[in-house]
Amino acid sequence: MARANAFYAQSGGVTSVINASACGVIETARKHKKQIGRVYAGKNGILGALKEELIDTSRETNKSIAALRYTPSGAFGSCRYKLKAPEADDREYARILEVFRSHNIRYFFYNGGGDSQDTADKLASYSKRNDYDLSCIGIPKTVDNDLPFTDCCPGFGSVAKYVAIATREASLDVASMCETSTKVFVLEVMGRHAGWIAASGALAQEKIGDAPQIILFPEVPFVEAGFLRTVKRAVNSKGYCVIVVSEGVRRKNGRFLSESGSKDAFGHVQLGGVAPVIADMIGRKLGYKNHWAVADYLQRAARHIASATDVEQAYSLGKAAVELAISGHAGVMPIIKRVSDSPYRWKIGHEKLSKVANVERFLPKSFISQDGYGITAKARRYLEPLIAGEDYPPFRGGMPQYVRLKNLLVEKKCPVKW
Amino acid sequence: MARANAFYAQSGGVTSVINASACGVIETARKHKKQIGRVYAGKNGILGALKEELIDTSRETNKSIAALRYTPSGAFGSCRYKLKAPEADDREYARILEVFRSHNIRYFFYNGGGDSQDTADKLASYSKRNDYDLSCIGIPKTVDNDLPFTDCCPGFGSVAKYVAIATREASLDVASMCETSTKVFVLEVMGRHAGWIAASGALAQEKIGDAPQIILFPEVPFVEAGFLRTVKRAVNSKGYCVIVVSEGVRRKNGRFLSESGSKDAFGHVQLGGVAPVIADMIGRKLGYKNHWAVADYLQRAARHIASATDVEQAYSLGKAAVELAISGHAGVMPIIKRVSDSPYRWKIGHEKLSKVANVERFLPKSFISQDGYGITAKARRYLEPLIAGEDYPPFRGGMPQYVRLKNLLVEKKCPVKW
Repeated sequence: MARANAFYAQSGGVTSVINASACGVIETARKHKKQIGRVYAGKNGILGALKEELIDTSRETNKSIAALRYTPSGAFGSCRYKLKAPEADDREYARILEVFRSHNIRYFFYNGGGDSQDTADKLASYSKRNDYDLSCIGIPKTVDNDLPFTDCCPGFGSVAKYVAIATREASLDVASMCETSTKVFVLEVMGRHAGWIAASGALAQEKIGDAPQIILFPEVPFVEAGFLRTVKRAVNSKGYCVIVVSEGVRRKNGRFLSESGSKDAFGHVQLGGVAPVIADMIGRKLGYKNHWAVADYLQRAARHIASATDVEQAYSLGKAAVELAISGHAGVMPIIKRVSDSPYRWKIGHEKLSKVANVERFLPKSFISQDGYGITAKARRYLEPLIAGEDYPPFRGGMPQYVRLKNLLVEKKCPVKW
Repeated sequence: MARANAFYAQSGGVTSVINASACGVIETARKHKKQIGRVYAGKNGILGALKEELIDTSRETNKSIAALRYTPSGAFGSCRYKLKAPEADDREYARILEVFRSHNIRYFFYNGGGDSQDTADKLASYSKRNDYDLSCIGIPKTVDNDLPFTDCCPGFGSVAKYVAIATREASLDVASMCETSTKVFVLEVMGRHAGWIAASGALAQEKIGDAPQIILFPEVPFVEAGFLRTVKRAVNSKGYCVIVVSEGVRRKNGRFLSESGSKDAFGHVQLGGVAPVIADMIGRKLGYKNHWAVADYLQRAARHIASATDVEQAYSLGKAAVELAISGHAGVMPIIKRVSDSPYRWKIGHEKLSKVANVERFLPKSFISQDGYGITAKARRYLEPLIAGEDYPPFRGGMPQYVRLKNLLVEKKCPVKW
């Protein structure tokens, strides 16, 4: 195919390393100017394609693009927006092709989670049906680590590292105060359906019996009596108890321990605030003084303590996406394949989008300890390499220096506005 | 006085740098063996003196003591325990002198906040009245930065840095999602009566208009209508609004926006959970999708991102405490004196404990912007140098390597148990 332009979009909740993938895409495209002209980034993700709001990344300096590697959040804006299924209503898909055609876009890189890979897959089929030559490549991203096939998802390793460190630090705090003050500390972490992030709290432990003594997974139904007994046992034996709780923990009847009731664009219930529910329960039933924290966005934005492994993988997957595209692959997503645990070695593979789309990967049973409150040695072997290495951003005056791009839009060409 | 032993205790809420002060005390005492024999640390603070649970720090290697400089929390245990006033009941004071006499302790280093400096002052008077030669030296510590005379308190600079970085990172996250998702983010930080920590959120701003657009201080009564108007204006102009809220924010009638009702040993109301109150208000009254985080212990334990300035000052104050003691000072607390803002220069001075005790230093009016939702240039000049510099702990396998001491107790000598 003649030299064509590329469209790159960030989708769904952002992470501390999604821009590292963007960096990988843009830097690699810049090295292959014979095949790829310009990389246009969607302003606010796929909305940028619909609204013809295309950010011209060629207007950014090499230095700015390099700085994406250490800048958290979505540098071009992301969105929570699910396209309508093309079978029911194909106007959005048709519009995207109209915009792509107007700007000679023949490469589509979609950086997101399961829903986004589904969209990329549908766009690939739609463009084929409509005789528009478009190479659709997914780039995995999700702090939840719930995509199938890839050994891990960029974004997860850094959240895991954040949660492990926060848990270790807070545990030391509680341990030193528990004689007369706080005896129980509850840290709420992300993870709507899958307990990968909560599991990473266990990496705070240096030896058996260390805090956190309890992890609450979405995969394990919450049973109050057994939970309270375990808290009490921990306080009696160690003087304190640290609990890492996933936002998605549910009772046996399937109800979330805490539901705010509002739903996001994908119809998912928006959660938050299970930590105060747990803390209140402990205060009322056991009488222990307690504290709780809700990390929320802090955990997924914490680029200052990102995992070097995660950053490297995020970048490599962006790079691989471009290399796959220019070598003629389409309808695929590059993935991480683990070669060995220790020393940790990995390589890049790829999988068909149609297989990846809309499959959620939960924490395997073999990763959860028998009592349901911890992780197994197997889980630890899996998790440990993902948090390895530090990759500090540059600092000035005590603050990390994150880049803000110019984000200049390309002139619109479509006769119809959206 | 003949060579005598020293007693060092950590008091009240711990910080990410209180052990750096301990490191300063012990390393400096080890250099002055002619004047100071052993440094005994109270197990769980002053309780260690009452219970005759004295940790023999001479049993720790130089390497372990050096590692205290980068280990958060209270390595010997801290406590929230206020001694009874000696005028009313002097049994605790008498007991402490009994223990000190038994172990030839003639130096008392008390590392804590206002309440603890008050205790140190009372013990100084009590020992003088009872003809027991005891050199009482306070070492300032409090994340709240609310001690008088000292330009700043060890512990504060690192929390300020944490809050500034967390706010910058979360703000980037919200900015990139606000088109279709979260429009308001609320971060709750510590600060019961004084807004120093909340103020430090403003350091996230790189230029005027940057997030956080709103800071809620305990010093400024919360007025709902004006607050909601300001949130709406921020969302209308920038697309999103980031709010840093101090746990101690109150309405005009003096009631905390959120009160859990329980009280600590000093009779202070234990707070927590104002962020969900604010978020709920915004959701109901303005309809904006929002997220909230409560940093709680994470902020004061976050040694991984401590301020190098803060660490250096914490160490220096511990060192100065010992130097003051061996040069014959007593009843004093070493303090930080600011020499200049930029370049930032400081030196160590000292102040009488009797003047320091129980005085709380609030954010000056001149530090709060006219609308009550931000800080002034003067405040910025004060705050900026305190977060300068990074001082990373050593990492292994992706995790910070904090020291755990042996904490071996000295054999008891007092005939009476406590």
